[in-house]
Amino acid sequence: MGTVMLGTEVAKAMKERLIQRTEALKERGTEPKLAILRVGARPDDLSYERGAKKRMELTGIGCQVVELPEDVSQRELEESLKSLNRDSSVHGILVLRPLPRHLDEEPLTRIIDPVKDVDCMSPVNIAKIFSGDASGYAPCTPEAVMEMLDHYGIDPKGKKVTVIGRSMVVGKPLAMLLLGRHATVTICHTRTADLAATCRDAEILVAAAGKAKMVGASMAGEGAVVVDVGINMDPEGNLCGDVDFEAVEPKASFTSPVPRGVGSVTTSVLAQHVVRAAETLSGQKRV
Amino acid sequence: MGTVMLGTEVAKAMKERLIQRTEALKERGTEPKLAILRVGARPDDLSYERGAKKRMELTGIGCQVVELPEDVSQRELEESLKSLNRDSSVHGILVLRPLPRHLDEEPLTRIIDPVKDVDCMSPVNIAKIFSGDASGYAPCTPEAVMEMLDHYGIDPKGKKVTVIGRSMVVGKPLAMLLLGRHATVTICHTRTADLAATCRDAEILVAAAGKAKMVGASMAGEGAVVVDVGINMDPEGNLCGDVDFEAVEPKASFTSPVPRGVGSVTTSVLAQHVVRAAETLSGQKRV
Repeated sequence: MGTVMLGTEVAKAMKERLIQRTEALKERGTEPKLAILRVGARPDDLSYERGAKKRMELTGIGCQVVELPEDVSQRELEESLKSLNRDSSVHGILVLRPLPRHLDEEPLTRIIDPVKDVDCMSPVNIAKIFSGDASGYAPCTPEAVMEMLDHYGIDPKGKKVTVIGRSMVVGKPLAMLLLGRHATVTICHTRTADLAATCRDAEILVAAAGKAKMVGASMAGEGAVVVDVGINMDPEGNLCGDVDFEAVEPKASFTSPVPRGVGSVTTSVLAQHVVRAAETLSGQKRV
Repeated sequence: MGTVMLGTEVAKAMKERLIQRTEALKERGTEPKLAILRVGARPDDLSYERGAKKRMELTGIGCQVVELPEDVSQRELEESLKSLNRDSSVHGILVLRPLPRHLDEEPLTRIIDPVKDVDCMSPVNIAKIFSGDASGYAPCTPEAVMEMLDHYGIDPKGKKVTVIGRSMVVGKPLAMLLLGRHATVTICHTRTADLAATCRDAEILVAAAGKAKMVGASMAGEGAVVVDVGINMDPEGNLCGDVDFEAVEPKASFTSPVPRGVGSVTTSVLAQHVVRAAETLSGQKRV
């Protein structure tokens, strides 16, 4: 019987630390603020925005939403982003994506000020994550995985860690964060020949494949740490992860559930990035 | 008894293909040209420059060396780079590194035009390699490894590939190139707990650790492909790789030697990048 890694607990602990930092910033005259740039009103975007706003509020961070009409022109969108770059009251910028089809994301990745790019949109931050430069902002989800491990005292150093999934939002940046912490990292994916054996061999297994309950008992090693990054719907319409929790949990030393797992930590990482950006921009450097 | 993978053979085959492409460019009025920006006269730089110049000459590519004095100012260096960006007769730019200590490389990475950045200095190209965007220029050595595999008909798809080393010039970008070709990639390094077992388990093993003859017979699987990226001196002062060739070669299906291995392919990759840049800049896009 293992330990259930609760993202909600991790978020709670992060909140306390973040409040201390936002208070220290305010004492020195800086009110940390996130700007969310949203085009149109996709339900997914609105849902993420609500979560982010609430998290900022809980941690003493300001949050300003810039809403642009669904049919905004590329030029107007770029101008909005530039004006957020220039606005010294804004420390972090989150552009909700994907954008409507008529808009091109690529120029935005080059426009956004890398110091305010708290969601790893700029190639400058992507390159920093790749090279292991801690001054970069990683995407929120892989960093949430690292927060989960840290909170539960699991040091990846020297460990065999297998990541299922090679996306730019989770798999690849997570592999880089783990390498930075001296794990031996294996990246698996749909083309991996013997996925079950490779996963079973891991001391820490992170599932980010986007396939409901694909990780069963036969894929988890005895006593392994199993972290679930998946967010899927099962055939009954219930939220579930990439891991078959009921099957894996008795075998693993630590297992993260879905919901109340990694997904509960992502907006806390976003808040942490905004605070770091505010510290950097106000000259109180802290990495 | 396995096959010895000769980089010299790979370079020869690449030369034929490159000559065809440079001729096609010239027929359409574009003379492909590499500019090498060198500060001072470090023996390492001069040696690499000689190899690069010779390779460009052999493949019909022009080569211009911009030599700046050892004590050049940061501003003059940046101006030189900017003028190469603007020079439409120059398609590829190679800045020889490391720079003398008084100079800062970081601003240069942001100044260099990503389209002319044939040696993966710009964060734009680093981010592209990380994300698997084939329009980026990878560093020459990891791409030389891929050329070796391709030349000898070794498809990494679905294979277990272990890379020893996690540097930004070889290990990490190579892992990304291999992932792009659907290999299951494990990245090992000095902190890996059981390096021998992890290496032995690989169908393709790439050694980029920078440690003379560290890969012995016990680290190579029966019938594995072993590619050696190391360039070291043994105690007798002879050039040698990271692989103990004599010990590994009888066991492996393919082994690359040092010298005459991967190192013989890097300037061909550089030439290939210059040709690609010239094709892109002259509007004959070809990735």
